[in-house]
Amino acid sequence: MIVVMKPDVKREQIKEVIKYIEELKLRPILMEGVERNVIAIIGEERNLSIQTFQALSGVDYVMPVLKPYKLAALETSHKPSIINVDGVKIGGKHLAIMAGPCSVENERMMIETAIKVKEAGANILRGGAFKPRTSPYAFQGMGEDGLKLLKIAKKETGLPIITELMDIRDLILINKYTDIIQIGARNSQNYPLLKEVGRTQKPVFLKRGISGTIEELLMSAEYIMSEGNPNVILCERGIRTYERATRNTFDINAIPVLKKLTHLPVIADPSHGTGDYLLVPSIAKASIAAGADGLMIEVHPDPKVAVSDGAQSLTPENFAMMMEECRRVATAVDREM
Amino acid sequence: MIVVMKPDVKREQIKEVIKYIEELKLRPILMEGVERNVIAIIGEERNLSIQTFQALSGVDYVMPVLKPYKLAALETSHKPSIINVDGVKIGGKHLAIMAGPCSVENERMMIETAIKVKEAGANILRGGAFKPRTSPYAFQGMGEDGLKLLKIAKKETGLPIITELMDIRDLILINKYTDIIQIGARNSQNYPLLKEVGRTQKPVFLKRGISGTIEELLMSAEYIMSEGNPNVILCERGIRTYERATRNTFDINAIPVLKKLTHLPVIADPSHGTGDYLLVPSIAKASIAAGADGLMIEVHPDPKVAVSDGAQSLTPENFAMMMEECRRVATAVDREM
Amino acid sequence: MIVVMKPDVKREQIKEVIKYIEELKLRPILMEGVERNVIAIIGEERNLSIQTFQALSGVDYVMPVLKPYKLAALETSHKPSIINVDGVKIGGKHLAIMAGPCSVENERMMIETAIKVKEAGANILRGGAFKPRTSPYAFQGMGEDGLKLLKIAKKETGLPIITELMDIRDLILINKYTDIIQIGARNSQNYPLLKEVGRTQKPVFLKRGISGTIEELLMSAEYIMSEGNPNVILCERGIRTYERATRNTFDINAIPVLKKLTHLPVIADPSHGTGDYLLVPSIAKASIAAGADGLMIEVHPDPKVAVSDGAQSLTPENFAMMMEECRRVATAVDREM
Amino acid sequence: MIVVMKPDVKREQIKEVIKYIEELKLRPILMEGVERNVIAIIGEERNLSIQTFQALSGVDYVMPVLKPYKLAALETSHKPSIINVDGVKIGGKHLAIMAGPCSVENERMMIETAIKVKEAGANILRGGAFKPRTSPYAFQGMGEDGLKLLKIAKKETGLPIITELMDIRDLILINKYTDIIQIGARNSQNYPLLKEVGRTQKPVFLKRGISGTIEELLMSAEYIMSEGNPNVILCERGIRTYERATRNTFDINAIPVLKKLTHLPVIADPSHGTGDYLLVPSIAKASIAAGADGLMIEVHPDPKVAVSDGAQSLTPENFAMMMEECRRVATAVDREM
Repeated sequence: MIVVMKPDVKREQIKEVIKYIEELKLRPILMEGVERNVIAIIGEERNLSIQTFQALSGVDYVMPVLKPYKLAALETSHKPSIINVDGVKIGGKHLAIMAGPCSVENERMMIETAIKVKEAGANILRGGAFKPRTSPYAFQGMGEDGLKLLKIAKKETGLPIITELMDIRDLILINKYTDIIQIGARNSQNYPLLKEVGRTQKPVFLKRGISGTIEELLMSAEYIMSEGNPNVILCERGIRTYERATRNTFDINAIPVLKKLTHLPVIADPSHGTGDYLLVPSIAKASIAAGADGLMIEVHPDPKVAVSDGAQSLTPENFAMMMEECRRVATAVDREM
Repeated sequence: MIVVMKPDVKREQIKEVIKYIEELKLRPILMEGVERNVIAIIGEERNLSIQTFQALSGVDYVMPVLKPYKLAALETSHKPSIINVDGVKIGGKHLAIMAGPCSVENERMMIETAIKVKEAGANILRGGAFKPRTSPYAFQGMGEDGLKLLKIAKKETGLPIITELMDIRDLILINKYTDIIQIGARNSQNYPLLKEVGRTQKPVFLKRGISGTIEELLMSAEYIMSEGNPNVILCERGIRTYERATRNTFDINAIPVLKKLTHLPVIADPSHGTGDYLLVPSIAKASIAAGADGLMIEVHPDPKVAVSDGAQSLTPENFAMMMEECRRVATAVDREM
Repeated sequence: MIVVMKPDVKREQIKEVIKYIEELKLRPILMEGVERNVIAIIGEERNLSIQTFQALSGVDYVMPVLKPYKLAALETSHKPSIINVDGVKIGGKHLAIMAGPCSVENERMMIETAIKVKEAGANILRGGAFKPRTSPYAFQGMGEDGLKLLKIAKKETGLPIITELMDIRDLILINKYTDIIQIGARNSQNYPLLKEVGRTQKPVFLKRGISGTIEELLMSAEYIMSEGNPNVILCERGIRTYERATRNTFDINAIPVLKKLTHLPVIADPSHGTGDYLLVPSIAKASIAAGADGLMIEVHPDPKVAVSDGAQSLTPENFAMMMEECRRVATAVDREM
Repeated sequence: MIVVMKPDVKREQIKEVIKYIEELKLRPILMEGVERNVIAIIGEERNLSIQTFQALSGVDYVMPVLKPYKLAALETSHKPSIINVDGVKIGGKHLAIMAGPCSVENERMMIETAIKVKEAGANILRGGAFKPRTSPYAFQGMGEDGLKLLKIAKKETGLPIITELMDIRDLILINKYTDIIQIGARNSQNYPLLKEVGRTQKPVFLKRGISGTIEELLMSAEYIMSEGNPNVILCERGIRTYERATRNTFDINAIPVLKKLTHLPVIADPSHGTGDYLLVPSIAKASIAAGADGLMIEVHPDPKVAVSDGAQSLTPENFAMMMEECRRVATAVDREM
């Protein structure tokens, strides 16, 4: 950690900071510059509070040196993690394609969608049974009935299931039905929930917060991993910016940045990243070209009657076309799907 | 709701949209312009899905006309709500001043702080027993022991208590100790949690999300209110922007905007809104001048040893000085404190 | 334009608005809803001021229906524009690859870079002679001497030149040397400059503002086009967001969005879009996959001695490798390079 | 400057960085940590390029220690600057109140507004003769005719004039008429323009960019000051964020932050900061409470016929009421108006 003192700092204040560092059993190095005095701290800084140092008299500001996450860091593992989901490997050469409706609505649509996305090449089935909706007056999901329909669709197609966990009290229930637990953007810093899924061994699909930083996403992964569950899959799903032409701004940079920082697999969600089904294929291809380990795509047999997210859902036909296009891009970057 | 059709729309597509609106038992009005055809929908639109309309063939985009919240809207109540917290009225002429440490740390500091903030004019005592921290390696709060210390401090001073609820499973526990339940910024869209506190009658202090819109804040209030609890207090605590000079960007506009839109009381949190104790008094005064119904301020007897948020905590002495300054501004805008 | 009246509007106020619309020789349509009265305006709305309507008594808010740009709109041209730059066609099947150093530094580096980027497949040479720098103490560019070196490099390689115009007084000078005039992000709303380049017929490379919206980018293009110059090339170069892991957030969504809205070619600038040479190849490939008509890439023979933007510059060797990778992706999306 | 090396850095790479620092005649200090090696650079770092260091092999990232501005820094002057504008002092105990229409429209409205704002307590008259408009089809200002009307209004009332300079070629013209040159938000990084006004001695009113950082605002002031003109007045006018409830997000934090960082006066512009005349008085009072040295307020005798910014303009009557309210707040924070 680097502590930059104020321009008019007094000798006493510098001594105080050094003394405080030594009390913490760390090694201070004082560097006296022409304009500023700077104190470097040698030692494990992850347990130090930046804010405490900032509150010390004479301190102007403080800069951490180490990344605050450890288990999620690339240097901890050195090679990309591959996560096994009921036989489907996420993180390797083969891309994971998660597709299905935003919400589970009824048996017919669920099975029809499952069969069609499988035919087009999807290897994991998505569907929401508990839905986080901005309005309390909007459809909140089918609950356990929805989970049962997902199970039927799995039996029908063999596709493993991913579904969202919103309420910590539903963990046991959802765990029984799903192959991957999804943590949604609004819960990306719901720490009790993260800890609880960290105590299972079930793969966790962790979405970046609506305006979460890349570092916060890795810290949320760290929450899960530090409880003992190493099976974390990260998801870039667009961030909130001032731009109003799209629902979110898909942060394509996050894909190669995450690949530099972590060994965990990274999935792209162009459906939420754009909010517009016409844009989804372009961003899906872009994500694969940028190095994503897979895609999550909303598909609905009849988007205009979808109970949620109709505007960003592809029809099975459009999904199949998109998959064809994606396959060519995947080959061009030495990936398979 | 206003449905704007694409420039090259076909007559068939317009008919389809009109038919769909009529099926919903609403009244469509077609307006044919030189460049665009527009269809207005007359009727209750809060149950309509914008996204469904956007998915209809030939539709370019859709604009809602009504605000999506109803119980929280000013026009529902016409006059500001006043919320009674164990005798302290929030929302009236007298300002609510909530002060205390970020985290409860031990009995001595808790009682000392409580006495001092009361002397300086605070009328509600804050203190966190369960702390949402970005890092799993940081101090996570004292838990129930912390709640007990808050109770002792209340007994000592008579100040009602506000403390944060993070985990839905702790609701009964926290409800037993606290006078106001705080929902933190990271949980502002934790809908199961909002619904659960909506089923109590305890006043709820609802913080705006880290990058929540004003409308989302009101929708989260609507979640609580639609479950039967009208006692919601809103809190502006700064939003995330590109600016790095401060921890958050305090959205002072939100105060008069909320006053125009809702009857619920609005409290300002300059501690999180700035992240720097040197800036807190300026933003506290500004908030009162802008029409806030009160303040939430972090105060710690010795900020440099605070386990959390030291950099933004005032000493009791600085808090007393700030209160003097605030009192003068309050008088200037016909408020009392 | 749609005018939404306040919930408690008076009959008189509605009459006033209708009268005002009629005075403007436009047709008002009053729609009386249960909660709100809405007045639609039929006719050309681009000359109307939203703000004037918002200032009318009883009006709550106003929503425009038409896009504010016309010449830049896709529906005006129906097919993509192809812009001819000294024989290189921008906007067609073949991708435009603009490469070269951030700043022109000296003859040797300029010619060396030009030869190497041409060998690797670039078809346009970039280089800055006038540099917009955040600090007045930083290198401000070589000025006309730099332009001369660009001319020499062009003679040597045959590559057309693109260089930035910052100062309206340099237009004649720069026009003499360059084949494309670049308008930088900081000048994207410098309207006198836009009008002036609009009065030439020289192709203009218009960068999106540092936090410009897609609509503002198109309005800036409209400024140029409405003066008579149709040769506008748009550039997505990343936007400013809260995310600090990269210099900017590259808005990949902007590429397919612009393709939906405008006939003008769209170039991606992954160098500024990321600020990190290690990320450039991923974002370059992603941009091509998303439908960009070309790339602008900073290349420097020895980035660590570059006078500007060293961190985001590729060496010629890295550029050649990136081009190989990009070529495969281009083929996969039916483009050539 | 602090150079943080990568976790797997080689001895050779460290040596290279140290050698490079020594070649720059600066002093490197190597600090070997458990996880990371860090090299501190002692000496004037303002001329160093962060990006060059980031491009060095083995370097992970670089953190500057010194602020990049010098002339604008508080520590350079130690006391607040007071700028004399034709007898009106900006920056002292007395607040500067700049008021008038967004655009100069005609003689009658200009003189009427000038007389009324003076009566209400304004001491500087604003009015735009050259207008930066997002649309080329919108009113672009009266030009020199507008400047003449400002001059007449000054003669009538004695109020000094502030008006915007957009085009560097108009500097001599505008300089002849105005007492303060305004640089608008869109030109806040138009460096040729900044340098040119830096070569006059006329007070310059510098608006923060639409999404400019506080540091960039100070760097733009540095551009002006480094050319020899110390008379710079800073203006907070709201920044662009994701929030759509207001035109901009007024960054109230910027006021006390600037007071900590610079000796230059700081004026608040609540008209642009909110975009809504109903919110202007609240934000005006808040700005004074937060320590602003004055206000800039748009006032129009009949906002609904204003050619620009009608929605955010106060009538003279509303302005007079706002001034009464502001006066009370000013007194409460020991300022005069």
